[in-house]
Amino acid sequence: MSVIYDRVALIGLGLIASSMFWAMRRDGLAGHVTGYARSSETRETAREIGLCDSVHDDMLDAVKDADLIVLCVPVGVMGDVMAQIAGALKPGATLTDVGSVKRGVIDAVMPYLPNGVHFVPGHPVAGTEHSGPRSGFAELFENRWHLLTPPEGTDARATARLRDLWEGMGANVAEMDPDHHDRVLAVTSHVPHLIAYTMTGVADDLRRVTDSEVVKYSAAGFRDFTRIAASDPTMWRDVFLGNKDATLEILGRFTEELFALQRAIRRGDGDHLHAYFTRTRAIRRGIIEAGQDTDAPNFGRGGGPRK
Amino acid sequence: MSVIYDRVALIGLGLIASSMFWAMRRDGLAGHVTGYARSSETRETAREIGLCDSVHDDMLDAVKDADLIVLCVPVGVMGDVMAQIAGALKPGATLTDVGSVKRGVIDAVMPYLPNGVHFVPGHPVAGTEHSGPRSGFAELFENRWHLLTPPEGTDARATARLRDLWEGMGANVAEMDPDHHDRVLAVTSHVPHLIAYTMTGVADDLRRVTDSEVVKYSAAGFRDFTRIAASDPTMWRDVFLGNKDATLEILGRFTEELFALQRAIRRGDGDHLHAYFTRTRAIRRGIIEAGQDTDAPNFGRGGGPRK
Repeated sequence: MSVIYDRVALIGLGLIASSMFWAMRRDGLAGHVTGYARSSETRETAREIGLCDSVHDDMLDAVKDADLIVLCVPVGVMGDVMAQIAGALKPGATLTDVGSVKRGVIDAVMPYLPNGVHFVPGHPVAGTEHSGPRSGFAELFENRWHLLTPPEGTDARATARLRDLWEGMGANVAEMDPDHHDRVLAVTSHVPHLIAYTMTGVADDLRRVTDSEVVKYSAAGFRDFTRIAASDPTMWRDVFLGNKDATLEILGRFTEELFALQRAIRRGDGDHLHAYFTRTRAIRRGIIEAGQDTDAPNFGRGGGPRK
Repeated sequence: MSVIYDRVALIGLGLIASSMFWAMRRDGLAGHVTGYARSSETRETAREIGLCDSVHDDMLDAVKDADLIVLCVPVGVMGDVMAQIAGALKPGATLTDVGSVKRGVIDAVMPYLPNGVHFVPGHPVAGTEHSGPRSGFAELFENRWHLLTPPEGTDARATARLRDLWEGMGANVAEMDPDHHDRVLAVTSHVPHLIAYTMTGVADDLRRVTDSEVVKYSAAGFRDFTRIAASDPTMWRDVFLGNKDATLEILGRFTEELFALQRAIRRGDGDHLHAYFTRTRAIRRGIIEAGQDTDAPNFGRGGGPRK
């Protein structure tokens, strides 16, 4: 593939930024990639593992002359970062972000946007529970969705070029209204994470009672929850505070449904439970058909005798 | 390895039974394995794919002369099945089961236990969301726990021999009090499944509002939930009804914790959220150290640039 941006600046060097770097390098999508992280330890690690073509101690040096600036910091500090870099952005440059919440980021960033700089907010629907500069890998975005939420009046060419970059890194790209994005993601990501955090916390309390058994005999369901609940605490704190209304609305629906199932268990209403569980099987099929997950029966733990 | 039981009968031919068959065959642990399933379609499939050395239309033919009988049916029907086969069991044979609930199974099976037959209940802490005779694979039990809950007075040699079989199939075996088992598993498996079912149900409701977007843009958290929620409805109905008290107790703790986090979000208490999420990261580390999951950063989706 050919170079899409001559100079790309990654602000914040965690899972997403480091995965972007390895993907852009693999596919030759960027001429030169600069990197900045607030922590000197992170910058040190980046230099050590060859993450970014140049790592800068000063954020302004990193964004200077960049054709694309990618804000890869927790959504709670996007506004602060933008306030600091706004004056150093090159006219004609494109600014984007990778935050999991879009309305809050737009409201925080737009007031500082210089004339002639194109802001195209984005959210890669991809991740692992790992964080930090060592956690990235080039394949993270492959066949995952990248959602762009350009505000009204955004330059269409800037949006199209950013789309090319993400498609170049293997993602499927869609455009969406930012408020709508936040409502959909509250269901598919934010509330599930909160629930996983909660269940893991409950088990942690009980561990004191049952010693290490809760960990030792953790079954598939719980292991998945703990993996989700191991995600970056700062990022997720900011997500919940930044998408408060939608999160609380979905939580309300969740507890309502949970109480109905709890009541069915208490009353011994097996038909209710069976019907409910049969219905939830169908949505799983939908996800596999949408190509958002695989149906491998053994989770890659060695091949079975047949398929 | 050498043959541990000359003749093994698998009653019910779903995920666990079919995985047992492939594992026993791979390692030469059983001389002859018979199989029975209530549904003629399942028996047909078993014959077609070579599942079991012989598949029987009559359950009594399957258990006749067996040295080990494994009940692989939903926990709600263990008692019924036992009532039917009790008279056909060979003196000196060992009877076991693979149910996720142990107290209920023991109470249902023991009244029918003939003199001279050893009942050693068990629970393989392993599974996938798939079910049926085609879903098994020999590696399912590898490095997973198999919990044995022999009632007081159980023949120690019978227990030791069954332990050899499960260890031969790759499992780590531990013995546990049945009531204690049910309390631990309520935390690590039963309530997590109920939560996953609930969240998937909520999303399914909302799908009608947002069309297919909930499925299309399902992020990692939600995808894991839907996978769990795709598990066999009959098996799980029976688990919740069979482990009612412990499930309801853990559910109570869960909603208490969830409400505390919900309140923190509503009040904008970021410190509370951050501290909670930091704590939950630790239990994940405990699970990885206990060898119950891997720490692979990319879930096997292709290798990153380094490790």
